[in-house]
Amino acid sequence: MDNIGIRNSLSRWVRDTGPYSDVVISSRIRLARNLEKYFFPSRLSHDRQEEVVNEIEAVISKPGISENTEGLRTVRLEGLPVIQRQMMVEKHIISPQQAKTNGHPGKAVVLQDDEAVSIMVNEEDHLRIQVLLPGLMLWEAWDMANNIDDTLETKVTYAFDDELGYLTCCPTNLGSGLRASVMVHLPGLVLTNQVSKVLKALSQVGLAVRGLYGEGSEPLGNLFQVSNQVTLGRVEKEIIEDLISVTKGLIEQERSARELLLNSDTGSQLTDRIYRAYGILSHARIISTQEALGLLSSLRLGVDMEIIGNVEPKKLDELMVLIQPGFVQYIAGGDLSSDERDEARADLIRDYLAKDKDIGES
Amino acid sequence: MDNIGIRNSLSRWVRDTGPYSDVVISSRIRLARNLEKYFFPSRLSHDRQEEVVNEIEAVISKPGISENTEGLRTVRLEGLPVIQRQMMVEKHIISPQQAKTNGHPGKAVVLQDDEAVSIMVNEEDHLRIQVLLPGLMLWEAWDMANNIDDTLETKVTYAFDDELGYLTCCPTNLGSGLRASVMVHLPGLVLTNQVSKVLKALSQVGLAVRGLYGEGSEPLGNLFQVSNQVTLGRVEKEIIEDLISVTKGLIEQERSARELLLNSDTGSQLTDRIYRAYGILSHARIISTQEALGLLSSLRLGVDMEIIGNVEPKKLDELMVLIQPGFVQYIAGGDLSSDERDEARADLIRDYLAKDKDIGES
Repeated sequence: MDNIGIRNSLSRWVRDTGPYSDVVISSRIRLARNLEKYFFPSRLSHDRQEEVVNEIEAVISKPGISENTEGLRTVRLEGLPVIQRQMMVEKHIISPQQAKTNGHPGKAVVLQDDEAVSIMVNEEDHLRIQVLLPGLMLWEAWDMANNIDDTLETKVTYAFDDELGYLTCCPTNLGSGLRASVMVHLPGLVLTNQVSKVLKALSQVGLAVRGLYGEGSEPLGNLFQVSNQVTLGRVEKEIIEDLISVTKGLIEQERSARELLLNSDTGSQLTDRIYRAYGILSHARIISTQEALGLLSSLRLGVDMEIIGNVEPKKLDELMVLIQPGFVQYIAGGDLSSDERDEARADLIRDYLAKDKDIGES
Repeated sequence: MDNIGIRNSLSRWVRDTGPYSDVVISSRIRLARNLEKYFFPSRLSHDRQEEVVNEIEAVISKPGISENTEGLRTVRLEGLPVIQRQMMVEKHIISPQQAKTNGHPGKAVVLQDDEAVSIMVNEEDHLRIQVLLPGLMLWEAWDMANNIDDTLETKVTYAFDDELGYLTCCPTNLGSGLRASVMVHLPGLVLTNQVSKVLKALSQVGLAVRGLYGEGSEPLGNLFQVSNQVTLGRVEKEIIEDLISVTKGLIEQERSARELLLNSDTGSQLTDRIYRAYGILSHARIISTQEALGLLSSLRLGVDMEIIGNVEPKKLDELMVLIQPGFVQYIAGGDLSSDERDEARADLIRDYLAKDKDIGES
């Protein structure tokens, strides 16, 4: 598969560039909704779950209902090969739980071609309406999610309580059912050892922070997801305003940390780190996801700081998704062992970077 | 300074290729000689040491005395900048002790342009006649050293005892005064963890083994020097024959180890190691001598095993000398701090490898 073919299998948030893309990789709005006439999915039979899927499919496929839902199509997950479901997880358009269908035919996702909108059906709630956009675009994502929500609400009856708001399976989602989040790339704060302090401050103002692609103290690829914790009793716009304001603060802190790194005694070490990352990525024959994410993070930093030229930043974002196990196998054309994946991953990275091969040979 | 200019400052053993060059970097013959009419240098006044230098210079500069000594010229070390003396050490044409003149005017080295012959004057002995050739060329080196020795002996009277043979300052050199040695590159034996066993066996048959460029258990660049220990009571030709035979055994063992590495499960790891070495060497902005020697060793292995193409093996041998601190400063044009040297070294390596830039981008 050539690079263009691969690229077409990526979501809009990976392929496009949004505002503040030097720090903010993506913005996500998610609304949890349930239909009044069914039990929550955890207590709903498989047959009845299929009814939910069919009902939603009927609504969105009705021509002319609204431009908000145009182009949406329903994908039943049980019908997809494991690797395809895994790729959806790697693109963050479905959750890992949703991908594990266990022969369950009632799990589905409703998508547009660019995958900016994805509605998981019968995950923890009947509907998880998600909009995922590149860069810092929370308002745009909110508008899109809100419009889809409004359109659906004209056709189905949501479970709603006048006091509690939208009813959800898990109490943490009660109320607005809104989770807003940003994925940020913070290599500067990590390298200057400020990241724990900064992230701790975020959790003290009610935000949740977690590393992306893997648990543990060393976040892979210096990527973090910041989201609101509380939904009950808060107005949606307040939640989003707060997150945007915090994210802008983070952007400033990250940019200052990068300047500090470049202008301090360690500036040449930073440059060395970045060029070595490129040298290894463009030459290794075996590479793990973990190592590759770390090196891609260094290289992305170098591109964003204009220390290294000739690499499109978006290419690196794309690689962060493409080097995940599902994509690596999809591109290689079949199931691979872990060792085979490490080789295929190295091949893929070299191939993807090859267009920029003159880089760093100054 | 361009690559050609740099290359011209290197000795023949570095620039030329000899037999078995996939394993044997160089062959060395050294004869220790003293003049009968002077005390050993350690007990000789500086004035008298200068007399020794003058006497030797007079002999070798006499036109037509013998073709063996043609082209030899005397270089008084005290007159040279520190960096130039250091470079001579890095090329192995003088010893570190000889380079430290401490304002002593009696230290000299007699050289030909290609530096295959170098005679240290007033090191531990009055004369240390050394011939250093690329690859496994001990007989050729022996012939050259022997001819120079014979020529000198027609003009000066050596300290000689009918029972003990040539008299030397240190008893370990008594007799023939001969030390024969080879510098071998044994990455295969190191990577297969066989090197300790193999080298221990050598010491049991009376050979001395030491790491090159630095002491310690981890030999830098997987380079080892193997030499005879005993000189007294042994015929020169026997010493050389023994060393050649042992070296040929080492070559076989090293080649088998390389085959083993390539054909075992770890073959792709070896390839990865080699390409990563190239990736780092061709992109790093800061690099220590130690790291560079290790990476050059991996790359040399890859070139010798034809895993990686487009790099001349000799270029790597040249780099092993050029990245030493003296050369790095010489090429950069002045005294550098340790940090500055690490940057200049990285620049030098990138520049030197740049001609082969298409390598590994397959």
